[in-house]
Amino acid sequence: MLQETINAIGTLNETVMAAATARQNNLTKPAGSLGRLEAIGIQLAGITGTCPPPLPARRAVIVFAGDHGVVAQGVSAFPQAVTPQMVVNFLHGGAAVNVLARQSHARVRVVDAGVAGELPGHPDLLAGKIARGTKDFTQEPAMTRDQAVAALELGIRAVREEVARGLDLLACGDMGIGNTTPSAAIICAITGTTPRAIAGRGTGVDDTGLERKISAIERGLARHRPDPTDGLAVLTTVGGFEIGGIAGAMLAAGAARIPVVVDGFISTAAALIACTLAPNLKQFLIAGHRSQETGHALALAHLGLQPLLDINLRLGEGTGAVLAFHFIDAAARILGEMATFAEAGVSDKD
Amino acid sequence: MLQETINAIGTLNETVMAAATARQNNLTKPAGSLGRLEAIGIQLAGITGTCPPPLPARRAVIVFAGDHGVVAQGVSAFPQAVTPQMVVNFLHGGAAVNVLARQSHARVRVVDAGVAGELPGHPDLLAGKIARGTKDFTQEPAMTRDQAVAALELGIRAVREEVARGLDLLACGDMGIGNTTPSAAIICAITGTTPRAIAGRGTGVDDTGLERKISAIERGLARHRPDPTDGLAVLTTVGGFEIGGIAGAMLAAGAARIPVVVDGFISTAAALIACTLAPNLKQFLIAGHRSQETGHALALAHLGLQPLLDINLRLGEGTGAVLAFHFIDAAARILGEMATFAEAGVSDKD
Repeated sequence: MLQETINAIGTLNETVMAAATARQNNLTKPAGSLGRLEAIGIQLAGITGTCPPPLPARRAVIVFAGDHGVVAQGVSAFPQAVTPQMVVNFLHGGAAVNVLARQSHARVRVVDAGVAGELPGHPDLLAGKIARGTKDFTQEPAMTRDQAVAALELGIRAVREEVARGLDLLACGDMGIGNTTPSAAIICAITGTTPRAIAGRGTGVDDTGLERKISAIERGLARHRPDPTDGLAVLTTVGGFEIGGIAGAMLAAGAARIPVVVDGFISTAAALIACTLAPNLKQFLIAGHRSQETGHALALAHLGLQPLLDINLRLGEGTGAVLAFHFIDAAARILGEMATFAEAGVSDKD
Repeated sequence: MLQETINAIGTLNETVMAAATARQNNLTKPAGSLGRLEAIGIQLAGITGTCPPPLPARRAVIVFAGDHGVVAQGVSAFPQAVTPQMVVNFLHGGAAVNVLARQSHARVRVVDAGVAGELPGHPDLLAGKIARGTKDFTQEPAMTRDQAVAALELGIRAVREEVARGLDLLACGDMGIGNTTPSAAIICAITGTTPRAIAGRGTGVDDTGLERKISAIERGLARHRPDPTDGLAVLTTVGGFEIGGIAGAMLAAGAARIPVVVDGFISTAAALIACTLAPNLKQFLIAGHRSQETGHALALAHLGLQPLLDINLRLGEGTGAVLAFHFIDAAARILGEMATFAEAGVSDKD
């Protein structure tokens, strides 16, 4: 299922993108004056193969949840019990991602990829627990290679379910106490950067907590030395089940030619893994925002993605991605609804 | 009318802001993790005097149009005929601001503050033409002091009409071929910066056009030397009718305790004039975006405003401001709809 999905990821439709570029330059505005919105409109045209691109009416945010053995190293400010508590909050509609998804007309779907605690059954919850949390990667690999494949395939399955319901635009989000630590480790492993340059305060660790976090990442990477070009090895040694799920979901969306808005630090770590497995996937990704978390900007730059928002978010859950949905809509509407110079009888540049 | 409006501008409700801050810290997210959205929610609470602040359901963007005598100096890439042509485009719903305002559920209202050409009557057009364009400020003051007051009061009148219809959130926009030149002159005059550091390419002048523009601003400022603390003198000598209209509209919104989202370079020049007249107005302003236009960041910093968006817009019309409406909504919804730690049974930070 994983290899089939990777093989299905194509490239953007260059002909339609050229038509979209020409149309941008005929609309009643100075060429380029709508900045990033113009580039996104052209990308949407290339993804959907249609100019102007249709409004992405059916949208979802899938929040993948998992726990992390590395919390034993004292890397998080919140107790692990918060992971399942927040999943219940998502299912009841009380979390930030629910509020912002309602505003963006996106449905929220939650996937238990590996929460340590018990979760109630719920129609919006996909129960895909791979294990009760990963192992502590300072001591042993976070998961087995089979579990890593299972995490990726869980993400693929989650997206296939949403595609069956109808899906034009996807965001992925994360919930997992401690998960900025494996995410930083992944970013370090793939980009070759030092943990001190990448690790940040997550949900708010103090100075000594941050030192413990940096040390844990250093020890984990020194122990496992994953091949930076082997996304599956990186996921296996220092990853997380929800991170694998997000990476798989991105691959499945790319295979279905559905644009994916990347959220913050954790989702970008997942995107790095996914793009290591399928470099073409990059063309289907749109970076929602630059997080406040140290190292996020570097990870985005490594992917060649420019973030839309820069408003100091550091929550995860997919919040920054669903906020960015408004810009995806705007980009599609601009290409679809604006008058051209000829239609409006407006003089073009001298 | 102008002085009465200035006198009516109050301050934010500190008690309600303290309640909003406390609520932010009890919602199910790490404190501060929603970044700028949290600060805007608190500001909305302070403006409206209500916590959580109500969703700003009734919203408008008022686009002020005017022409500029200084175009005789060859400062713009587009012919002056485009100003009335674009006004007609606004009235027919084909411009970028119309598209983005529809998406943001904002009504578009256009004010003829001083367009050089003729305009048709239209129910959405306030015909307030003060003169057929300003004078060339390299040769004489752009307008008389009476005209400057009239421009400000036109903006006040436009907002009072919208308040009578029901208004919870305002954006102002501009249309006026050549108007980055007076805007740059205003920013230079009030902030004490050199024209070379502030003037940009506007709708797209080439290198020699940019040099002509810098020279025009230098000559205008050398001729008039307006007192930087006298907003009316700056508007009179190097301003524009639509810029005065926007400044007046902002003052009227502040007086009515309605949040105003500031658009790009031209609107920020207007905000500088308005805040020179009424320093408290700043508390009612929210910067929608940082424009690609050189000098915009400096002008925002002088006002102490942090832009929400940074996506290389340089169109004006209010486009960046109505795009930012989505974040104002998000900020209000977060405070109003998220569950608290206690309500959701989620453990707080250790």
